[in-house]
Amino acid sequence: MSIFANIAPIKYEGPNTSNPLAYRYYDENRVVLGKTMKEQLRFAVCYWHNFCWNGFDPFSHSGTLERPWFTIADPMEAAKAKADEAFAFISKLGVPYYAFHDRDVAPEGKTPKESVENLKAMVDVLGQKQADTGIKLLWGTANAFSHRRFMSGAGTNPDADIFSLAALQVREAMNATKTLGGINYVLWGGREGYETLLNTDLKREAQQFGRFLQMVVEHKHKIGLPGFIMIEPKPREPSKHQYDFDTATVYGMLKQWGLENEVKVNIEANHATLAGHSFEHEIAIANSLGIFGSIDMNRGDMQCGWDTDQFPNNIPETALALYYILQGGGFTHGGLNFDAKARRQSLDAEDMFHAHIGGMDVCARALLIAEAMIKDGTMAKFVEDRYATWQAPWAQEVLAGKSNLDAVANRALQANVDKAPASGRQEFLENWCNKFI
Amino acid sequence: MSIFANIAPIKYEGPNTSNPLAYRYYDENRVVLGKTMKEQLRFAVCYWHNFCWNGFDPFSHSGTLERPWFTIADPMEAAKAKADEAFAFISKLGVPYYAFHDRDVAPEGKTPKESVENLKAMVDVLGQKQADTGIKLLWGTANAFSHRRFMSGAGTNPDADIFSLAALQVREAMNATKTLGGINYVLWGGREGYETLLNTDLKREAQQFGRFLQMVVEHKHKIGLPGFIMIEPKPREPSKHQYDFDTATVYGMLKQWGLENEVKVNIEANHATLAGHSFEHEIAIANSLGIFGSIDMNRGDMQCGWDTDQFPNNIPETALALYYILQGGGFTHGGLNFDAKARRQSLDAEDMFHAHIGGMDVCARALLIAEAMIKDGTMAKFVEDRYATWQAPWAQEVLAGKSNLDAVANRALQANVDKAPASGRQEFLENWCNKFI
Amino acid sequence: MSIFANIAPIKYEGPNTSNPLAYRYYDENRVVLGKTMKEQLRFAVCYWHNFCWNGFDPFSHSGTLERPWFTIADPMEAAKAKADEAFAFISKLGVPYYAFHDRDVAPEGKTPKESVENLKAMVDVLGQKQADTGIKLLWGTANAFSHRRFMSGAGTNPDADIFSLAALQVREAMNATKTLGGINYVLWGGREGYETLLNTDLKREAQQFGRFLQMVVEHKHKIGLPGFIMIEPKPREPSKHQYDFDTATVYGMLKQWGLENEVKVNIEANHATLAGHSFEHEIAIANSLGIFGSIDMNRGDMQCGWDTDQFPNNIPETALALYYILQGGGFTHGGLNFDAKARRQSLDAEDMFHAHIGGMDVCARALLIAEAMIKDGTMAKFVEDRYATWQAPWAQEVLAGKSNLDAVANRALQANVDKAPASGRQEFLENWCNKFI
Amino acid sequence: MSIFANIAPIKYEGPNTSNPLAYRYYDENRVVLGKTMKEQLRFAVCYWHNFCWNGFDPFSHSGTLERPWFTIADPMEAAKAKADEAFAFISKLGVPYYAFHDRDVAPEGKTPKESVENLKAMVDVLGQKQADTGIKLLWGTANAFSHRRFMSGAGTNPDADIFSLAALQVREAMNATKTLGGINYVLWGGREGYETLLNTDLKREAQQFGRFLQMVVEHKHKIGLPGFIMIEPKPREPSKHQYDFDTATVYGMLKQWGLENEVKVNIEANHATLAGHSFEHEIAIANSLGIFGSIDMNRGDMQCGWDTDQFPNNIPETALALYYILQGGGFTHGGLNFDAKARRQSLDAEDMFHAHIGGMDVCARALLIAEAMIKDGTMAKFVEDRYATWQAPWAQEVLAGKSNLDAVANRALQANVDKAPASGRQEFLENWCNKFI
Repeated sequence: MSIFANIAPIKYEGPNTSNPLAYRYYDENRVVLGKTMKEQLRFAVCYWHNFCWNGFDPFSHSGTLERPWFTIADPMEAAKAKADEAFAFISKLGVPYYAFHDRDVAPEGKTPKESVENLKAMVDVLGQKQADTGIKLLWGTANAFSHRRFMSGAGTNPDADIFSLAALQVREAMNATKTLGGINYVLWGGREGYETLLNTDLKREAQQFGRFLQMVVEHKHKIGLPGFIMIEPKPREPSKHQYDFDTATVYGMLKQWGLENEVKVNIEANHATLAGHSFEHEIAIANSLGIFGSIDMNRGDMQCGWDTDQFPNNIPETALALYYILQGGGFTHGGLNFDAKARRQSLDAEDMFHAHIGGMDVCARALLIAEAMIKDGTMAKFVEDRYATWQAPWAQEVLAGKSNLDAVANRALQANVDKAPASGRQEFLENWCNKFI
Repeated sequence: MSIFANIAPIKYEGPNTSNPLAYRYYDENRVVLGKTMKEQLRFAVCYWHNFCWNGFDPFSHSGTLERPWFTIADPMEAAKAKADEAFAFISKLGVPYYAFHDRDVAPEGKTPKESVENLKAMVDVLGQKQADTGIKLLWGTANAFSHRRFMSGAGTNPDADIFSLAALQVREAMNATKTLGGINYVLWGGREGYETLLNTDLKREAQQFGRFLQMVVEHKHKIGLPGFIMIEPKPREPSKHQYDFDTATVYGMLKQWGLENEVKVNIEANHATLAGHSFEHEIAIANSLGIFGSIDMNRGDMQCGWDTDQFPNNIPETALALYYILQGGGFTHGGLNFDAKARRQSLDAEDMFHAHIGGMDVCARALLIAEAMIKDGTMAKFVEDRYATWQAPWAQEVLAGKSNLDAVANRALQANVDKAPASGRQEFLENWCNKFI
Repeated sequence: MSIFANIAPIKYEGPNTSNPLAYRYYDENRVVLGKTMKEQLRFAVCYWHNFCWNGFDPFSHSGTLERPWFTIADPMEAAKAKADEAFAFISKLGVPYYAFHDRDVAPEGKTPKESVENLKAMVDVLGQKQADTGIKLLWGTANAFSHRRFMSGAGTNPDADIFSLAALQVREAMNATKTLGGINYVLWGGREGYETLLNTDLKREAQQFGRFLQMVVEHKHKIGLPGFIMIEPKPREPSKHQYDFDTATVYGMLKQWGLENEVKVNIEANHATLAGHSFEHEIAIANSLGIFGSIDMNRGDMQCGWDTDQFPNNIPETALALYYILQGGGFTHGGLNFDAKARRQSLDAEDMFHAHIGGMDVCARALLIAEAMIKDGTMAKFVEDRYATWQAPWAQEVLAGKSNLDAVANRALQANVDKAPASGRQEFLENWCNKFI
Repeated sequence: MSIFANIAPIKYEGPNTSNPLAYRYYDENRVVLGKTMKEQLRFAVCYWHNFCWNGFDPFSHSGTLERPWFTIADPMEAAKAKADEAFAFISKLGVPYYAFHDRDVAPEGKTPKESVENLKAMVDVLGQKQADTGIKLLWGTANAFSHRRFMSGAGTNPDADIFSLAALQVREAMNATKTLGGINYVLWGGREGYETLLNTDLKREAQQFGRFLQMVVEHKHKIGLPGFIMIEPKPREPSKHQYDFDTATVYGMLKQWGLENEVKVNIEANHATLAGHSFEHEIAIANSLGIFGSIDMNRGDMQCGWDTDQFPNNIPETALALYYILQGGGFTHGGLNFDAKARRQSLDAEDMFHAHIGGMDVCARALLIAEAMIKDGTMAKFVEDRYATWQAPWAQEVLAGKSNLDAVANRALQANVDKAPASGRQEFLENWCNKFI
């Protein structure tokens, strides 16, 4: 029997419901800025945290979460039982998308070939599940960081043979994504970095990864994946230092290898904060550089220096993230994947529902707040007005590359007057945001 | 009378001296890897921390350091008295270079024109001092962050008129650098960032700064400055977020504006650590990207989240920094500027000597250690060997762009064997480093 | 003319007002849990950030904020002009309390005696202002950290003569607080710490501070100050390490010197986060140890490692802080002082109003949310129930000290069964909080 | 065959050896400050990182380290095989002590009773090993954090039955320590903290833990353990917040429960840095409070926010730690346990030797440096002299509690002169330290 058997499908019941297993804000058909909430938010449930993690952490011997599929001896049978429960859960939530790593859905085999076959077999199972439930695949990815062979990286591994095993895994995961009608493909470079510079050649590893990424892009075009190839920036953990540190670093890598028009970023909230940025910063930077793709929604714990992957629960912070996403045009191919897990002390199947319902309602409220901010327009107009002096012809010439340092300097020298700065009005703007909370 | 009158010129006396006002390791004529220590290290004393800072901090009303030139009423007379003491100090230390911001050496005037004239007058004074002492200018820069007009940035200011005042200042500072025979020109973007995204247009500000930087490069070629234009990365402080966050971010900016062959980075140790990197990481990354320029040597306090600008005192850490600098070919136009200050409780003129002597001796020892590491060659060979499998023809084809994902994946699939990883030998390598300390 | 002349007194206009210079939630007479909002929140405006800071930071030469009283040459005339504006501002806001350091309100004199007289003269001025406006003094304090003589501490200074100058200042500030009808007295130990262990004797400095604090408590009883002596914990800044690191550390100090029933803590939000704690953690710990006193309300920037002293603007976070304050019984003698400043780019007098109005409205909303959480009671009951097994007689004996390790261990051994843990329900509880936002 | 079969016992070969499997500085019989190095350093090898950890981390599916005893099906047989290898390793290193958790050496049974019996059986095995090799037990401890029953704490668990299971485990681990002639007993409170305040009653949990600790101390006296009961402070991880945050926090807890003369701290370097302190700070604070006990030697990665438990490799930092330990009188019952692990990429048995040899040599050099600093005496004298003014009779009266605030303040007022501060000479002192490196 499903561990979710006692839980009814989650429904929208409105803000005043006292039912903790109902949506208070997420009304999938409510229209927000011309699209339904479902279309705007493009929620996805992740496979790994929900169905693969047993609650272990670095100070545990085993896990805390007791799920039936963890104790099934045959790995393929376990994978099928897990898939049954995954689709049951996502269906009950009413979420339109999911996302997975190859090894989440199909077990590592004894040989590369067996691994490939395991994945193919499970793709058939998942395809049937998708057909049965209407759930779609937002993106696929390959887990090229958990197995010991990848301890020193996948694309950046010092051993070329391990690089080729990573290539096999990525190729198969891309093909599986295509087969399942998946939209995008994500690369998260957990061990694409180093533990110590002392044994590392940064230039070689950059070249390896650059070429790896180009091959992935070429393969995407070859198989006709419709959406984006995306890199998911993270500064560290598990590596001491990851090469895709943050969005700005990824942009530099893409420019280095000529891929800035081919590859986008999948931004995770907790990765942003670990890199010393706010989540909205990473979104706004990606927008300004033209590489915004998708979101791994979660939150970190600002008092902890590691990736806690908690569900979002701060409404005003989430509202700002969605404001900047909408300012950039909203999601196209990407979506909002909950790369988040209920805490290891949240033992029950019910807790998985609380976690997702809470996260979805926070995002739904945030969307409504962002909508109100955009319709109000005060903040956008304030920003626009702040740069008004740049409309002067001489200033436009500067931006157009038709001026030079001497010309601009001489203009200032001839005017020979100082210019008083204007208030940045930060507190007024912060208060204005709070009007919409 | 000079505040340094009672202090004799600092001499090399060898490791066993008990004289705290002597060098124990910095022997400027000692040859290390084919150059003298003086030529390898290219030490510079900075003007700002030593001669402009009075010991104030955010919790003080005024300063702690009582220097005679702070109390001279006429700003130009004060500037001249300050220059006398600066050159007296640097001469006694026997350091070959110095570095300054325009406002360090010449006072802000009541009008832009007066500021320009003040600087020109002081350039004459400094030029004479340089001729008298043989001290040279490693790099010049403009302080476009202290005055209130620059509170919202200089090149990225939302007000185009303030941008033009910044352009004037930079033009004059570049010209002053050229006049004084300076080698390089540095831009530090202390307020080229934002306090709140709410009032900021990241894309506009990036365009402004991109064009600003292009104009600076064009002007460099016009006036014939011999060395590098350099950006000094820093993640934050004073801004909540600076655009030149770290070396990788700067690389992306340079690629965006086509300047990756024109502009280098001036890496500061404490800025690296504030950005979540080790100092040697930033050096190694800059080497791997071909943009290493120069060093602002100092250290932060790893328990404090702000820029403490202390003198380096950890010998093994400094040795690693110099090892990576030497691995990249050593300094060409750049050098090792101490962007560091004696603590605000180090009140006496004598303390400025202790600070520099200690810092220089740490660097000199670090240089000798780095030399030994390089001559030994074990670490470099270990790294080289670790990537040996990439010499295989098929792997070389991958790197050369002559292969594709299917080919590499199929190779792995056909072989159908796993590959065991090899130990990274981190502890062995760390121990090996300590052999040379 | 007052710089606030153009701004009308701030009124409550309700949530729907579009007037940014009105309260949307702070309705001082609204009754919340049996007291008016004014009585529950006990807001105070601080003197230092609002009227003494000119916008300088470590990277500025001077400030950004141009206030008339900064340019008055005679220090006592400047102090009086400042007081006029301070009371005008606080009156227009309608805030019931203020707080100051001695040196905020009266200038340092040329001798200790002159400083004492300056303060006495200004106490007369302030007393008259209080009488005229009805504004009261929440707490006084002495600034024993800004002057260079205190660079190495006040109570912990290695120089006993400087200790005695600190004692004079504190005695006078306590007496001034008493004279003005002030309720509490706060000690903030900005430089009661060290820059380097190398020159510091921790044991001596602890003894000095312990005795200093005992003398302060004795003096409080002597003069009859009605409220609390309070220490304001902070981990660092300006010192590399402060002795009153956080609430738990302060508790240990109080126990060491027998003062745990005499001294409370004044908890600042940004100090909590700098110490690696959440604000509500520090409040809850202080409650559990019986030393909660008052609040310095502000927020830090979680991406910056220094004390940014911003106004609170996150509603759910502030609600949790107030929830824990109310759980502990609410304010008695203490209150909610805004130790916060409008940003240095917020140049205008108007910005000071935006800052306070925003902060006060956030706190008022937070209070209403906390009220709803308390009335609902679900969370408190969940916590109570979670510890239900401790009601068993054997467990009560353990807590009462009537059992021992062997007895408890043997009980478990004889039962010889494991005990399954119960879900912590974190996500359910987090969602429940969000119901009230 | 032992995995260490090919490695010969490690010998002291002096600084010039090029043998990486020899000590260059650790000469166990060399006399340093009146004791041999072996007696001064009291090295211990830890069981858990070396023999229980398989290289897993939060992003791995299994481990990287393949040790024969991990694949032995019978848990007791595996435990015996592990013990064989552990004692083989420690013997070859020539380290005098080891340390363990109960669950490191003996497997968890199916029932509490079986766990107790497993431990007793393994105590026999270990006792024989100790007798055979001369290796002694520095301290024992109980692992009351890895099993899922302890997910919400052991002594602080909301469930009294789980508390009693923890009590059983601690009682048995204490008794095992006594049986094995162990010297000390350590409590590390990994989950004695909280994940969310929302489900936590801080006051109850403090009471539970206070009583738990008192019972442990009573039991220590009952069974006659010769050394210290020690708490090992840590701020967080695995818990979001641990109650034994740092040494100062532990001191407050001990005072609260009247245990400040009964319980000491076991200070870990990486825990210190996670709490925002330097390692030497924690040692010096413990000395000043009279609760210094022992050391868990390791290092963190200052760019990573989690507990990396690396071997120490920074010689000057380690020297300062040992300087403060020696200043406090050196180790009595405690010792220097390496709570450190070779990296997960350091796959080979050989790497365990590199790790320990490097760590031991760093500590040995640090000891020699600390000895030189102490014999030189300059630093200690500087500190002593800095407080000289406190020898004045009036100042001694202050410290003796025979003065009051009015008396001290009036003294300063009557003198009516300011006192100029003296330089703290930080850079001089830092340079002086480097003389001995």
